[in-house]
Amino acid sequence: MQLVSFLASDGVRLGVKTDNGIVDVQKTAAKAGVSAANSVDEVITRGAEGIEQLRQVIETANETIPEEEVTYAPAVQTPGKILCSGANYRAHVAEAKLNVPDNPIYFPKFRNSLAAHQEDVIPPEVTTEVDYEVELAVVVGKQAYNIPQEEALDYVFGYAVGNDLSARDLQFRNSQWMYGKAIDKFAPLGPYLVTADEVGDPQTLDLKCSVNGELRQNSNTSKMIFTVAEMISDLSKIMTLEPGDVLFTGTPEGVIVGMEEKNWLKPGDEIVCEIEKVGRLVNRIAASS
Amino acid sequence: MQLVSFLASDGVRLGVKTDNGIVDVQKTAAKAGVSAANSVDEVITRGAEGIEQLRQVIETANETIPEEEVTYAPAVQTPGKILCSGANYRAHVAEAKLNVPDNPIYFPKFRNSLAAHQEDVIPPEVTTEVDYEVELAVVVGKQAYNIPQEEALDYVFGYAVGNDLSARDLQFRNSQWMYGKAIDKFAPLGPYLVTADEVGDPQTLDLKCSVNGELRQNSNTSKMIFTVAEMISDLSKIMTLEPGDVLFTGTPEGVIVGMEEKNWLKPGDEIVCEIEKVGRLVNRIAASS
Repeated sequence: MQLVSFLASDGVRLGVKTDNGIVDVQKTAAKAGVSAANSVDEVITRGAEGIEQLRQVIETANETIPEEEVTYAPAVQTPGKILCSGANYRAHVAEAKLNVPDNPIYFPKFRNSLAAHQEDVIPPEVTTEVDYEVELAVVVGKQAYNIPQEEALDYVFGYAVGNDLSARDLQFRNSQWMYGKAIDKFAPLGPYLVTADEVGDPQTLDLKCSVNGELRQNSNTSKMIFTVAEMISDLSKIMTLEPGDVLFTGTPEGVIVGMEEKNWLKPGDEIVCEIEKVGRLVNRIAASS
Repeated sequence: MQLVSFLASDGVRLGVKTDNGIVDVQKTAAKAGVSAANSVDEVITRGAEGIEQLRQVIETANETIPEEEVTYAPAVQTPGKILCSGANYRAHVAEAKLNVPDNPIYFPKFRNSLAAHQEDVIPPEVTTEVDYEVELAVVVGKQAYNIPQEEALDYVFGYAVGNDLSARDLQFRNSQWMYGKAIDKFAPLGPYLVTADEVGDPQTLDLKCSVNGELRQNSNTSKMIFTVAEMISDLSKIMTLEPGDVLFTGTPEGVIVGMEEKNWLKPGDEIVCEIEKVGRLVNRIAASS
């Protein structure tokens, strides 16, 4: 199932993408007189039952919203944590002149970084070196602590396309990357949250990124150094993962910081991140007003 | 005013510490038939008005809870961000064999790291090198973006004592410190959230830490490399700070990682962190069950 969060006059609404357009869950459920989740968070918390309720709601839907009429919200809105993996594709490690890590490297983003599909991103005035990074984003479905790798994917609710926008000058101003990463709107996430059953093996997905129509990144999640399962297990050894937590899983080669001539992102640039079975995330860089 | 969050049968309650003990705000307000915030978060959101309401509630209180009977919750429970400064005292930078930074170094914790005054901390099985760090913790009072340093303290709601517990083996397993920092219960915070007016200048406070009664850290917040105001301004240049966000401001010298002989914290050890005008935070290390 492909969940969509979109803006209505009364706030963020939950939708489900169907072949005929997007079903407004709240409106449809009310008409049918049935109960269903009102937000992505609620669906995640209710788990299989939440999905089953949505299936029932969709069956009764006799109207949908054309996708092009929807204003998207980020694929999740209130994650407790946004954990990001860095240096997790070998060819990216090489281009970024980093060392191949012996264990996963993590840095944070927070809710302020979330942005929606089609939402403009205004970089802060203190950076001139904005870069893109297409990444498979994993959304946790169940509370997880000290989970072995073999069971780790059982704790995944679903996947979304993420763009780990990065201000390279700020990221490398000192040893810790957070200041160049945890920037407002620097984590576009969407358009859909696709349930794990529809994606299957998360290590077999083509992912690519283009800027103004020019292909820049083109790889496959099979090339991750540490798999989704390894990272979930690794993180769960020190922290309790909660439903709705997000894990960005690193980016492949092809980012600006790895290029000879570095033409950083500038106002007007359109970045398209696309992952097989998961979706196509589009954002534009805007000028600060 | 010294706000206290404590556990009752129905969840976390808001209290105010007075000379006679702790006033249960909800109970007292209900009796007096007046309106008041039900949580620290609500007080922060309501700002000056929230504090004034609490003052009125306290005046009507004719019963209090003795402090020793209270089971504390963390000084804040649902911060959107826990931003931590590292390498922010010169003598600590020297003992940790780090370089004096040109700009603030930040790493994250998340809500899972919060622990209460008097709460036991169980380190994860994957570390054998647990260390303490007494730190002044700052709680944001108002939404802040792109704030000049001169105005930054206007955005502070109050202060608490923090212990930035750190797993040194995990912190330094690769370049990014998060994995050794964002551990469950590794951010004890409390006992009180003291409003900014009672603390005054945050750069003149003695802070110390002892383990099993032995003084280990003993410094003053005047020795920070980057002041609270500088860090709030710096962070606000890239991210929107929100009411309730927490900033840990770094630790002075005297931590285990800086010692010749490194006797890491072990089950049974009692760590006492104390900051002038802010409070005294006590936690014990417990064995994993």
